[in-house]
Amino acid sequence: MRIALGVEYQGAGFQGWQRQKRGRSVQQCVESALSKVADHEVETHCAGRTDAGVHARHQVVHFDTLASRTSRSWILGTNVNLPFDVNLLWAQEVRPNFHARYSAQARTYRYQIINRCVRSALWHQRATWCHQPLDADLMRQAGQALIGEHDFSSYRAQGCQSKSPVRRVTRLDVRREGEMLMIEICANAFLHHMVRNIAGVLMTIGRGERPLDWAGEILAQRNRTKGGVTAPPDGLYLLGVDYPDIWGLPDWRQSLDRLGPL
Amino acid sequence: MRIALGVEYQGAGFQGWQRQKRGRSVQQCVESALSKVADHEVETHCAGRTDAGVHARHQVVHFDTLASRTSRSWILGTNVNLPFDVNLLWAQEVRPNFHARYSAQARTYRYQIINRCVRSALWHQRATWCHQPLDADLMRQAGQALIGEHDFSSYRAQGCQSKSPVRRVTRLDVRREGEMLMIEICANAFLHHMVRNIAGVLMTIGRGERPLDWAGEILAQRNRTKGGVTAPPDGLYLLGVDYPDIWGLPDWRQSLDRLGPL
Repeated sequence: MRIALGVEYQGAGFQGWQRQKRGRSVQQCVESALSKVADHEVETHCAGRTDAGVHARHQVVHFDTLASRTSRSWILGTNVNLPFDVNLLWAQEVRPNFHARYSAQARTYRYQIINRCVRSALWHQRATWCHQPLDADLMRQAGQALIGEHDFSSYRAQGCQSKSPVRRVTRLDVRREGEMLMIEICANAFLHHMVRNIAGVLMTIGRGERPLDWAGEILAQRNRTKGGVTAPPDGLYLLGVDYPDIWGLPDWRQSLDRLGPL
Repeated sequence: MRIALGVEYQGAGFQGWQRQKRGRSVQQCVESALSKVADHEVETHCAGRTDAGVHARHQVVHFDTLASRTSRSWILGTNVNLPFDVNLLWAQEVRPNFHARYSAQARTYRYQIINRCVRSALWHQRATWCHQPLDADLMRQAGQALIGEHDFSSYRAQGCQSKSPVRRVTRLDVRREGEMLMIEICANAFLHHMVRNIAGVLMTIGRGERPLDWAGEILAQRNRTKGGVTAPPDGLYLLGVDYPDIWGLPDWRQSLDRLGPL
């Protein structure tokens, strides 16, 4: 049978989601903990492969198993076998044609920026520090040029292996809560480094170093070398993944409803 | 001359504020970094000596120095010499009769509780996990019995060295933001473990294990052995310290204005 999982992790101690020859990966930790509960080797597939240092508030994963366990057993048993920086949120049986990656309709990422003169011990590795004042309104306006279906080649990492550079961004929000600035982006899917490249461009505009329409100009060039700097991973969170209602998965928005900075 | 400082730290890696024979202390880190900038040994005094694992969003500290430096030099020079989990927020010359502890009028602490079925990797060591549902309204109502000037012997650690057990609590708020529950307490000063003991009692009431008026009943007994459990340090933050306006120090409330969970 196929089981879907919600997974939360702190990215700072991982080389990213994907299993690596060297270094800690979230996938390896989750598979090893699940294997203990299942009593056989388990292979997982995730909705969005996050990079080294990138966090997840609500990653979605699936795996196949011969073991029959209650949701409660999967959650508690796996969490006991996971290190402090990763945990399951929920576990649920799904039909065998569900796929965490291919069934997903949309992903939402957040980029958190601590915007003040001095660095922050409390937000170390959980937000990106920017000491120059950022204009959130300007950044929000600039970001509107990216909404819709576009060729995002200018915002794509050079090593990105996706066949098509076309993605559909449905929402791009920038808001400030005290010293914290939050960029939230929702799209059907993302190219490699796409959120961090967008964050890098919006921060440059927010500092007043480039005009408002620079984000759109870069987009139109369809050329990565015309793009801006890639913002660091510290501030990046996979907030949640959307699936059609027919799969009956828990809604990641519910618990995040009124939640401020993560 | 005398210099006042705002200091932020993550408590997880420290044995607490106070310099210890063994283990890392915030005081030792701050004094060692300041000494490098001052070019002589520096001794600091803080507004509230936090325990092991307790965080500070805005601790206030003073020290005396023979060195003449700009605020900017104190801040940047000291931060360069501090580890990632502690940093200065500001530095300012004050009159020689200012004292971080004795000039303070009030302290505000926050206790953060992540309230859901499963533990949280993202809030590890930054919030206390409670898996039973907590009723924030009940907790807020229960807390009102503690407001005013009272003998807080029942909420005081057995080793507490304060001469008087009387403190004046001016505000006790409990609010929920999504999965996060936040208790905020303002008082002229606090006894050892006072916030954690109050949090322990309010959580017991919030779970429905004791009635609403239990917090007040415990208070009236003036006896620590009648009190509740001490809540863990992970969720505790020194949010800020208030001084009379004549000292002209930065207001910690400004940046926290709309800030959610820390």
